[in-house]
Amino acid sequence: MTAPDRFSFNQATAKYWPIPELVAGCVEAGVGQLGLWREETNAYGLDKTAELVRDAGLAVTSLCRGGFFNTPDWYDENRRAIDEAAVLGAPVLVLVSGGLPEGSRDLDAARAHVGEAIGALVPHARAAGVRLAIEPLHPMFCSDRCVVASLGQALDLAAPYPADVVGVVVDTYHLWWDDQVWAQIARAGREDRIACFQVADWITPLPEGVLLGRGLPGEGCVELRRFRDAVEAAGYTGPIEVEVFHAGLWARPGTEILARTLAGYLAHVD
Amino acid sequence: MTAPDRFSFNQATAKYWPIPELVAGCVEAGVGQLGLWREETNAYGLDKTAELVRDAGLAVTSLCRGGFFNTPDWYDENRRAIDEAAVLGAPVLVLVSGGLPEGSRDLDAARAHVGEAIGALVPHARAAGVRLAIEPLHPMFCSDRCVVASLGQALDLAAPYPADVVGVVVDTYHLWWDDQVWAQIARAGREDRIACFQVADWITPLPEGVLLGRGLPGEGCVELRRFRDAVEAAGYTGPIEVEVFHAGLWARPGTEILARTLAGYLAHVD
Repeated sequence: MTAPDRFSFNQATAKYWPIPELVAGCVEAGVGQLGLWREETNAYGLDKTAELVRDAGLAVTSLCRGGFFNTPDWYDENRRAIDEAAVLGAPVLVLVSGGLPEGSRDLDAARAHVGEAIGALVPHARAAGVRLAIEPLHPMFCSDRCVVASLGQALDLAAPYPADVVGVVVDTYHLWWDDQVWAQIARAGREDRIACFQVADWITPLPEGVLLGRGLPGEGCVELRRFRDAVEAAGYTGPIEVEVFHAGLWARPGTEILARTLAGYLAHVD
Repeated sequence: MTAPDRFSFNQATAKYWPIPELVAGCVEAGVGQLGLWREETNAYGLDKTAELVRDAGLAVTSLCRGGFFNTPDWYDENRRAIDEAAVLGAPVLVLVSGGLPEGSRDLDAARAHVGEAIGALVPHARAAGVRLAIEPLHPMFCSDRCVVASLGQALDLAAPYPADVVGVVVDTYHLWWDDQVWAQIARAGREDRIACFQVADWITPLPEGVLLGRGLPGEGCVELRRFRDAVEAAGYTGPIEVEVFHAGLWARPGTEILARTLAGYLAHVD
């Protein structure tokens, strides 16, 4: 069995699948590409993960995540994240900017700081051969997780920096509601900024805390194929990661999660 | 005791306060303006509510809500809502557009339908002397409650219609995350579209379903006074409604809710 070439399975979709089983499961399913997360790869061992993935012949499409520029040690932490991406062979480090600093209401200042912080990381990222990808999250995360809330804003933040070092993430879950998103995807293409394309579906009702309520492709209301067509029309031909956070899904066996993810991808994205 | 002239207490902030007590409580607190809701006014009696409010010398600043254009009877239902606003003396009917039709993923079509539906209501609204106010809700409500997700989009939808009949709502809770909001408020002023200004604060974590998690002014992270300054700079000198949905707040006595609302307004908006 072989999965479609461009499909990449983001590890977060099966958060509790141990890395050796995840790697074996992907090989078994003919999946050639993986998106990885720092927490899980560090818990298993960075070098061990890199070796396991390499020996299995899998490509790593992205590492999640750097960012959280509202924390005091953001500079060192993001340099470490860049180094880890390089060790894993991930071409892209996804940046989730972090929310407002504790007690602050100054959104403009927080956003300006994100832009400066990314600039400060550019030399290290370039030296490591890792592209930074600014991810706009859904506006419901603006206060506590990511002050970057639209694709247009992510592109504005990326603009001062070279496109081969700083790009953006297009994630259907976070952007589907935005009536400007099609124009901004076209702009992202013109500016050569699309570094990563992630797919999840929007379902309601949202759970408490709103983090773990995403749907597999086809379970919700997002025009996923329209997004795929739009990023392709914008010149993006890279991996298509499916990244779904859902508590109920996470409780299932990894092989089942991967099979359902692939089925949703084939029916609604491919 | 007299509350600030421009303050208006939206009934939804004390959802379970019976209307006679609400009216008496406002008079007692020196509050001269109220925002009302259809469900509650119809349950108590439309004419009875209108008489009670008028006899108490209170002004009605808005009626919530029309809209929900994704329901089959939207046309008749919205004409009724316009008539009710006229009976209550509410100069403004707030329109919450409704989400996607059941099973649909066609957001563009749903949005186009909203624009056409509003156009169909213009003659009746004009005849009744009621201004329709398109309310963009936070994008987290886009699929199931309101496909209008930004102020810019609301203004685009209003654009074909005369500004004295079709305006927009600026609600801090729904719009605070948007980096375009300041430019769009200025545009709303230039186009003379600001029909209603509502204030609530953004707090986290969001509760399940995300509807009942708003904060009183000052409890959250929104730059409320900046919003007030922005709508004033755009030429808006009308009422400032505080409208907060929060299950815990609703459980408190109405007099306490009103006192806390006023205190938050004085400290963070006035």
